[in-house]
Amino acid sequence: MLENYKEIREGLQKGPGHRVAIAAAADAEVLEAVCMMLKEGFAEPILFGDAVKIAKLAETAGLDSAALRVVDEPDGAAAALRAAKSVRDGEAEVLMKGLVNTSDFLRAVLDGENGIRGESLLSHLAAFETPGCPRLIIQTDGGMNLYPTLDEKVGILKNAVEALHRLGVECPKVAALSANEAVNPKMVSSVDADALAKMNTAGEIEGCIVEGPVALDVALSADAAKRKKIESRIAGETDLFLVPNIDAGNIMGKTLVCCTHAKMAGVVLGAKAPIVLVSRSDNAESKLNSLALACALA
Amino acid sequence: MLENYKEIREGLQKGPGHRVAIAAAADAEVLEAVCMMLKEGFAEPILFGDAVKIAKLAETAGLDSAALRVVDEPDGAAAALRAAKSVRDGEAEVLMKGLVNTSDFLRAVLDGENGIRGESLLSHLAAFETPGCPRLIIQTDGGMNLYPTLDEKVGILKNAVEALHRLGVECPKVAALSANEAVNPKMVSSVDADALAKMNTAGEIEGCIVEGPVALDVALSADAAKRKKIESRIAGETDLFLVPNIDAGNIMGKTLVCCTHAKMAGVVLGAKAPIVLVSRSDNAESKLNSLALACALA
Repeated sequence: MLENYKEIREGLQKGPGHRVAIAAAADAEVLEAVCMMLKEGFAEPILFGDAVKIAKLAETAGLDSAALRVVDEPDGAAAALRAAKSVRDGEAEVLMKGLVNTSDFLRAVLDGENGIRGESLLSHLAAFETPGCPRLIIQTDGGMNLYPTLDEKVGILKNAVEALHRLGVECPKVAALSANEAVNPKMVSSVDADALAKMNTAGEIEGCIVEGPVALDVALSADAAKRKKIESRIAGETDLFLVPNIDAGNIMGKTLVCCTHAKMAGVVLGAKAPIVLVSRSDNAESKLNSLALACALA
Repeated sequence: MLENYKEIREGLQKGPGHRVAIAAAADAEVLEAVCMMLKEGFAEPILFGDAVKIAKLAETAGLDSAALRVVDEPDGAAAALRAAKSVRDGEAEVLMKGLVNTSDFLRAVLDGENGIRGESLLSHLAAFETPGCPRLIIQTDGGMNLYPTLDEKVGILKNAVEALHRLGVECPKVAALSANEAVNPKMVSSVDADALAKMNTAGEIEGCIVEGPVALDVALSADAAKRKKIESRIAGETDLFLVPNIDAGNIMGKTLVCCTHAKMAGVVLGAKAPIVLVSRSDNAESKLNSLALACALA
């Protein structure tokens, strides 16, 4: 069970330092997050981008620009390629997107010669530190795969379970979410959730306990399960919330952030290294937490 | 703009009283909600169900069973049919489900001879009174239609806009939700949201302002729109949240209820009268708020 980001960041300080390659790093909030990361001391950045702009913004962010490792590459797409290559070559263990188009950035990730694509499907893992909630709500995939097939859901689930193992959760309890606990042949979320639970029972998906279809209230609360007379091995102790599609995942995440003031972190899994793919609307603290999550997975 | 349920209930006390036909009313929490409703005085119940059980439970709930109008019908499906017929015949203006299977209840609603099906698609409207949120979050359709087509989304939207007009919102601001503001041909939620917004501009969907595709953060917050540089006529003032599918709607609703302790009310629209279709896990207060919402729409 993971309680909060502080726990993850403190755990990192005890381990070896990591290196993070940042593509198109000339961005005020990215550099603010880098400044916070350096203060906490869990990783060192390699900054790819416009060296002049980076030096200027670094100063504003309170960084000693002379002490920073900067690779001058003013073009965003080229900076992404060089950052990806540095991870591929083992110079860094985490890749992060700065001020570059997501499509250019992902093209670099997937590039045959310089990229870091592995055997697995790329998928998004998000964590939400939610006021009043005693543990992190860890969710997949609300950011990468749109309407995943059952096969793709297996890939998404395997990526996330491996990530949770790395975070120290030995046998994560997984809720394959749907609108309720009944299998309805017309509701693909329920059919897929049922299939995932059965594949887990049959040993085809290992290292976790998958329950599904299950509704969010049961996954979040043992009391809700009791009230609904649902027998559950995961109710109130769910480590991973597998959402049926990007609409559900995105809306769940935004409800948590906007209505409970949850703090979000996100990371892309399935490549040869964890990828931090923050959006412009994430603040520096969110970027720091995403960096910490990625370093913990590296 | 609707602030909370209290406003709706107080509005009802000024209007004419309504009658609510309750199918299979022998349920403790249904009768508790009836007791609260009678105290507030906004509607009178007609209770269809096992008269002996109803009398016993009514006493426990603090009701004067002698003063109640009870139609003895111990069979759940038959009680649903008789309750629906009483609405069809104009004896009551609202239909409510008690302790009867949803499928039996809906069969009665749709019954050609006794039911109350109209010309419209049946759809679900939910309202969430959320701590820290200055207005009700009104959402459709997270409970009835699974993966609606564009045509069905038009029907869902028209039902909800008509309902909001009845609630006094003259020209509701509607967010056709997707994961972000870009139209992505692979993301059906974004394509449909774009189509709905264009149909609204073209005058095919009237009486409201539809924006889409729009992500939940922009719909909820003018600041989020500003940060993301999205020009929006609805940001932070959204009256209606149109969700792309039942998974997204259900998970959004359960996030609000479980993580912010929002109070939910729900009603089914599109029949000849509003229908209260609460679930067993809803408490008496939630049932009362659903009753008030339905009476306000009657």
